[in-house]
Amino acid sequence: MASALVTEAVLQDRDTVAITWQDGLTSRFHAIWLRDNARGADARHQDNDQRLFDITELPEDLGLEAVTSDDQSLTVTFAADGYRAEFPQSWLRDYAYDLSAPGGNTRTLWGADIAGDLPMSHYEAVIQDDQARRLWLSQVDDFGFSILSGVPREEGMVCKVAEIFGFVRETNYGRLFEVRAEEKPVNLAYTGLGLNVHTDNPYRDPVPGLQLLHCLLANEGGGETVLVDGFKVAETLREEAPEDFDMLSRHWVPFRFRDDTADLQSRAPLIELDDRGRLVAVRYNNRSAAPFDLPADVMPRYYAAFRRFAAMLHRPEFELGFKLGNGQLMIFNNRRVLHGRKGFGEGKRHLQGCYADLDALTSELRKLEERKDG
Amino acid sequence: MASALVTEAVLQDRDTVAITWQDGLTSRFHAIWLRDNARGADARHQDNDQRLFDITELPEDLGLEAVTSDDQSLTVTFAADGYRAEFPQSWLRDYAYDLSAPGGNTRTLWGADIAGDLPMSHYEAVIQDDQARRLWLSQVDDFGFSILSGVPREEGMVCKVAEIFGFVRETNYGRLFEVRAEEKPVNLAYTGLGLNVHTDNPYRDPVPGLQLLHCLLANEGGGETVLVDGFKVAETLREEAPEDFDMLSRHWVPFRFRDDTADLQSRAPLIELDDRGRLVAVRYNNRSAAPFDLPADVMPRYYAAFRRFAAMLHRPEFELGFKLGNGQLMIFNNRRVLHGRKGFGEGKRHLQGCYADLDALTSELRKLEERKDG
Repeated sequence: MASALVTEAVLQDRDTVAITWQDGLTSRFHAIWLRDNARGADARHQDNDQRLFDITELPEDLGLEAVTSDDQSLTVTFAADGYRAEFPQSWLRDYAYDLSAPGGNTRTLWGADIAGDLPMSHYEAVIQDDQARRLWLSQVDDFGFSILSGVPREEGMVCKVAEIFGFVRETNYGRLFEVRAEEKPVNLAYTGLGLNVHTDNPYRDPVPGLQLLHCLLANEGGGETVLVDGFKVAETLREEAPEDFDMLSRHWVPFRFRDDTADLQSRAPLIELDDRGRLVAVRYNNRSAAPFDLPADVMPRYYAAFRRFAAMLHRPEFELGFKLGNGQLMIFNNRRVLHGRKGFGEGKRHLQGCYADLDALTSELRKLEERKDG
Repeated sequence: MASALVTEAVLQDRDTVAITWQDGLTSRFHAIWLRDNARGADARHQDNDQRLFDITELPEDLGLEAVTSDDQSLTVTFAADGYRAEFPQSWLRDYAYDLSAPGGNTRTLWGADIAGDLPMSHYEAVIQDDQARRLWLSQVDDFGFSILSGVPREEGMVCKVAEIFGFVRETNYGRLFEVRAEEKPVNLAYTGLGLNVHTDNPYRDPVPGLQLLHCLLANEGGGETVLVDGFKVAETLREEAPEDFDMLSRHWVPFRFRDDTADLQSRAPLIELDDRGRLVAVRYNNRSAAPFDLPADVMPRYYAAFRRFAAMLHRPEFELGFKLGNGQLMIFNNRRVLHGRKGFGEGKRHLQGCYADLDALTSELRKLEERKDG
């Protein structure tokens, strides 16, 4: 039997347990946190781990009157009502909030030099084998993109690939959209013109978390895909010009797309952070940025920051270029990775795309990792 | 012809135009903002108003060398390259960022007393008449919910109603989900137990913006729907206990849902604000709140704020109760309005629900308002 993780557990005061762990680290747990996270059958649904009570049902002044521990568990008794809650020590250590580091970025940030070692997977393996599917999804999670080869060149396959891990997000562009270059284009979008790197649909709330693009027909010559890791560029901006980073993350700006059938508007930051300053999302789209509505005194400084960030997005060291071939399907995190394409003259080219959300992908990845470890 | 909106326009310095408006207000526009928002055919796509250039394509030091105005428009000439940009004066006034107020909440916040005047619409009118449809969507936009009567009691209708304005958000619960109470329940969820008010799926990122619930079979006695305007409660918290409001909006906390097929996790604030301190979203779900991971020194104060907010959600003055009848369909903003139900004994009851996103609804509403005004 493993020896106890907890070396010592004492009441530091009426509301706090102080624990010394086997490795010498110490951490505190508060009465209210312990009671709110009680693990017993009266507290949590045993199938889905959902909490069975509301915080308002707990006594106002809980207090602790005892703490005991044995080899595996730790038990506290509450002063207010004598309730006892038992915790596995390993669970307490996992959730020891005194020990949780502020936590920086844990993903692999990349630049142009990832070209020599692209995250790639193969369609047949992904649909047949759990571990190949896990690897594919972990590539998207870690690098923000992956290229899937060998996808049958059939219309609609892009949605079927999204359904391997989640659900298509339908929008006013349809369940899937066509990216087609014709020999005699009737519309600018169907030409071989280059497209500046951007994230899609920042005017949408919520913004699509994932985009999938399936190459049904690659043109000959030109038309390379360009990807930029927006998190890498944002972190570089944070290092090189922290005030500019602060401008773009603190202020929100409006985005808009309008045509005959839709008028989509959203306000959001170009660089979105969580409460610990970690990157959550990057939005950049020169076509749909609406007139900025910041205070006049802020406007010149905001524009200076915006120009610096935009210029950085075009640095060759950040630009990954590659040619998406017939039957290849690119999936990328649209809240992190910017995409664009080089111009390619007049050849025929046909891609189909769709959107999906990130939560289903990370959920499926966790389940596959659980099965691998379990 | 209307007289000019602009009374005076002068160059305040090399980078700033100062405008005095007909009503005596003044505002400034900066060279970079004016150039970035140039309205000409070389600058914006004439069909969809998308910007045709990237900020990096503009000269570094633009400067202004002249500003002139006539009855309808204002024209600036840039020093760097002699480029001229003409703006409708009414457009400039609309986007005069010096005049844009910080802007508080513009929606109607409500409490229990809205029961006497519920936002209601009728299905037949909504599908046949643009103005009835506009009114219905504006109810959801303004109050955060609306009750649609006369929806045919057919399975799957809930998705068809979502498709009147947008698209169903499919999740691991399916395209639609069943909320059913059986006479001999095999599962807790299918009983007549009450449910504490909550927002759905805070463990999902993005969180569903809209929920629709269609009553196919109402039970007899009990089972009232309870709605609470989370924005109203949050604004009340901001007034009564600003430090607690600050706690809940500044710190993010984790949410989780786990079963055999999914492991959904998200970190987000209970009260989400934009850069101007306006409410964006409220999340509250006692069942899926995961162990808080805040710094130990913050934890006791956070819990105090959390308890206060939770207690406020149960104040009778905020609780709207009503009985959803046969054929009625409730739609609500899941980022604003909390929902729950009273217990109802053992009668049969059958609802179908689905999720959708807010952006399509507000887009459709803008288009209908445009047609009304136009």
